[in-house]
Amino acid sequence: MSTGGGRNRGRGMDPIRVGICGFGTVGSGTFTVLRRNRADIAARVGRDVLVTHIGARRDNPRCDTAGARVSRDVFEVVRDPEVDIVVELIGGCDTARALVMEAIAAGKHVVTANKALIAEHGNEIFAAASARGVSVAFEAAVGGGIPIIKAIREGLAANRIEWVAGIINGTGNYILSEMREKGRSFAAALADAQALGYAEADPTFDVEGIDAAHKLVILASLAFGIPLQFDKVYTEGIGALAQEDLAYADELGYRVKHLGICRRTAEGIELRVHPTLIPDDRLIANVNGVMNAILVKGDAVGPTLYYGPGAGSEPTASSVVADIVDVARTLTADPEHRVPHLAFQPDRLSGEAVLPISAVRTSYYLRVAALDRPGVLWRVAQILSEAGISIEALIQKEAPEGQETATMILLTSVTVESRMSEAIAAIEALDSTRGRVTRIRMEKLEG
Amino acid sequence: MSTGGGRNRGRGMDPIRVGICGFGTVGSGTFTVLRRNRADIAARVGRDVLVTHIGARRDNPRCDTAGARVSRDVFEVVRDPEVDIVVELIGGCDTARALVMEAIAAGKHVVTANKALIAEHGNEIFAAASARGVSVAFEAAVGGGIPIIKAIREGLAANRIEWVAGIINGTGNYILSEMREKGRSFAAALADAQALGYAEADPTFDVEGIDAAHKLVILASLAFGIPLQFDKVYTEGIGALAQEDLAYADELGYRVKHLGICRRTAEGIELRVHPTLIPDDRLIANVNGVMNAILVKGDAVGPTLYYGPGAGSEPTASSVVADIVDVARTLTADPEHRVPHLAFQPDRLSGEAVLPISAVRTSYYLRVAALDRPGVLWRVAQILSEAGISIEALIQKEAPEGQETATMILLTSVTVESRMSEAIAAIEALDSTRGRVTRIRMEKLEG
Repeated sequence: MSTGGGRNRGRGMDPIRVGICGFGTVGSGTFTVLRRNRADIAARVGRDVLVTHIGARRDNPRCDTAGARVSRDVFEVVRDPEVDIVVELIGGCDTARALVMEAIAAGKHVVTANKALIAEHGNEIFAAASARGVSVAFEAAVGGGIPIIKAIREGLAANRIEWVAGIINGTGNYILSEMREKGRSFAAALADAQALGYAEADPTFDVEGIDAAHKLVILASLAFGIPLQFDKVYTEGIGALAQEDLAYADELGYRVKHLGICRRTAEGIELRVHPTLIPDDRLIANVNGVMNAILVKGDAVGPTLYYGPGAGSEPTASSVVADIVDVARTLTADPEHRVPHLAFQPDRLSGEAVLPISAVRTSYYLRVAALDRPGVLWRVAQILSEAGISIEALIQKEAPEGQETATMILLTSVTVESRMSEAIAAIEALDSTRGRVTRIRMEKLEG
Repeated sequence: MSTGGGRNRGRGMDPIRVGICGFGTVGSGTFTVLRRNRADIAARVGRDVLVTHIGARRDNPRCDTAGARVSRDVFEVVRDPEVDIVVELIGGCDTARALVMEAIAAGKHVVTANKALIAEHGNEIFAAASARGVSVAFEAAVGGGIPIIKAIREGLAANRIEWVAGIINGTGNYILSEMREKGRSFAAALADAQALGYAEADPTFDVEGIDAAHKLVILASLAFGIPLQFDKVYTEGIGALAQEDLAYADELGYRVKHLGICRRTAEGIELRVHPTLIPDDRLIANVNGVMNAILVKGDAVGPTLYYGPGAGSEPTASSVVADIVDVARTLTADPEHRVPHLAFQPDRLSGEAVLPISAVRTSYYLRVAALDRPGVLWRVAQILSEAGISIEALIQKEAPEGQETATMILLTSVTVESRMSEAIAAIEALDSTRGRVTRIRMEKLEG
C-alpha cells in the first residue's frame, strides 16, 4: 500500500500503478495516451507508469483494457492496495468528493480533471491532502491540455500577478466565433455546437458561464494566493448577446469574447465572467472556435499568453498524465518541499476581499435604441457626463426606412459599475429611448 | 556549506541563499524582483529567498545592493560556503563554463540564463551535475519570461512531441515587423532596433540566427529526448530578406517570420532556423515586435502556443527566479526523482539522427526575375514539373515601364530541399532568367 508520506520505493525501479475512476471521454483518453506513449513517459519519469485498475459502470467499447483490472464500483479502485495514484474522472461533485476524500484518507495521491469539485470543495480537499501528506493535482481542470496551472503556479512564481483574463470555455468561444464569422444567431450557433458534440444537450454550464466561473476561481486562487471562493464570482453568460452587437464591435475595432477575468486592485480582488469587448489587434481577440487562451499579467514578466485546446479526450488526458508524472516524482519527496496545491503555502493564503460587481471598474459598450430625432444623443451624453463618464467613440445608425427607432452605440471611459448602472437607468427612463440599454464591459488587456 | 545531495535543512525554516554572478541587465533584474516580491516568493516557497552574495566587475548604479556581499571576482561567489544556489548571468561560454563547472563540483545548484553555454556545453554540464546530485536550471535560456522549458519538459510530458516552431529571437522579429508594417528596409529596421536597445552594436548573433539556433537546440533536446547538438542546426539569418518579399507574402495571405523549427520525421530530426512563410491566420503569424512565441505540437494535446516577452531585464529575471524557486524545492529531494535536465532520463536519450538541410521537406516561396516575354513561365513550370514539384499559387508582375525584367512569385508543393536546389539551379541557368532565385521556406503549422 502506498503511504504517500515519503516511502522510498527501492530506487525508483517499481512501476507506478495508476487507478482510473470513470472511463468516459477523458478516462479512456488517459488510458490510451499512457499506453501509446508508455516508452516515452517511462523515459521521462525513470519508472514505468501502468494503469492497473479501472473503475467504470460500463465498458468503453473504444478501449481495450486488457491487462487492467476493471471494477464496476469506482470505490474498489480507491480501496485497491496496489494503486499508488487515483485518477478521478467521474465528474460532478457528490460521488467525486467522497471518492477523493477516501483516497486521501487512504494515503493515495489524487489526480483530477474536475473543475467543479476543485472550485467548490478544493479548500477542504487540499487541507485533508496536506494533513495526510499526499498531493492532489488538477492541471486538467482549467484550459484542457494547456499547462496553465503549472505556468501560473511554478513558471510565474517570481511575479506578483496583476490580472488574468482567459477564454476558458471552448463551447462559448465556438458559439461567439460562429456568430461573428457567419452572422448566425446565438440559438443557431448553439444548435451547431450541439450537433458537433461541442455542447451538451443541456448547455447551461457552458452558456451561462458556470463552467468558466469554476475555472476562474481556480486561476484566481493560484494567481493571488486566496482561498477558492466560488460563491463570490460574478457570472454572466452569452445567451443574451445579439449578433448585431458583435457586428458593431467589429466596426469599432473590437471583438467580443466570453472572458473569465480576475484582477488585483487597491480595493480588493475582481472575480468575474462575462462577455467582453477587446481590441481586435490583441492576440487573444483572435483565438477562435473551441480553442482556449489565458493571458496572465505579472509585474516582472509582463504579459504572457497560453493557448491550446480547452477540452477533448486526448488534450485533457495530456494534462491528466502530466499530473501523474508530477505526482510520480513526489512519491519519495519530502511533502514540505512540494509545490503547494494553491501556489502559496496553505498558512500564507491571503484574506483579501473579493469585490462585488458593483465595485468593479471597466469601460463599457452601450447600445441604446432611441427615437430618431434631434436632442436624444445630447440627453444621453448629458446623463453620462453628469456621472463623470466620457464618450470615447460613437456610432449613430439612422432608423431604417419606415421605422422610428434609431440605434446609438457608445464606448465609454472607465467608471465604476454602480455608477454606470445608475446612468443606464437614467437613460432607460428617458421618454426618447426605447427598451433596455445593452451593456457589454470592455477591457484593453494591455501588457 | 550546501551539499545538494539531499541534506535536510531543518524543516524548511532557513532562508535560501542565492549568489548572483554577473550584475548587468538580467542580474540586476533578478536582484530587484527577488527583493520587491520577497514576501510573495517566501509565501510560495515556504522559505525566504535572499541574495547574499553578488559577483560583478563593477557596481550597477541602478541597484542598491545593501545587505549583500559584493565581490569583484565572480568565483568568490562560487567559493562562498554560505551560498546554496549560484546564478550564472555573466554570459559567454569560457568563464561561464568554468564557473558553472566549479559550482557543480562544489555541490551547489546552478541557475543560468545562458543559452550559448547550455547549447554548446550542456551535455557535459548536465552529466557533471547529475553525477554530483545537483540541479542546473535554465528556463531563462529560451523565450525570456515565457515558461517554455517547464511547459515542454513537464506540462507536455504525456506527449510524443511532433514538432516545435518558435519565434525565439525578439530582435529579429522586431526587424521583420518593422519591415512589414512600415515598409522599411532591413538596414533601416536594424538601425531602429539598435537605437531602441533591442539589438546589440554587433547584431550578428541575432540577425544571423545564431541566438535562435542556440535556443532551438535546447527546445529540440527537451522535445525529442536527444542530446544537445548545436553543430547540427541549419541556420539562415534575415539579412538577405528584401522588403518586397514581405509584401508579396502579404499579398498571398502569408507572413514572413524568422522561425526555429524542429520536427520528428521518419527519416530523422529536422533542426533549422530560417525565414519562413506562414499563413496569416495562424496566431503565431500575428506575434509582432520584440515578443516571442513558441508553438508546440504534441500527439495527445495537439497544438499549444506560449507567448510573451523574449528578453529584457525583469522578464528574463522572472524565469531565473522561477528556477530558483524550483531548485529550492529540490534542496531536500531525492536526486533520482527530480525532473531530468533534458526532460528524459540521461540514460534514455535517443541517438536519432539530425537530418541535413538537403533532406528536409517543405514547400517554398520562390521569386524569379525574368525577361518579360512569353514562354518564360512555361520554362520555369516545366523545370519544376520535371522535378515533381507543383505550383500552388502564382503572381506575375509585369516589368516596370522602361525595364525588361519582370517578377514571378511562385508557391510550390512540398518537396525535399535537394530537389528544390537542383530545380532552382536549372531555373537560374535559363537564358531568360536574371540573377539568383529568392527562396523562402514555407510551413503551414497546422494543428
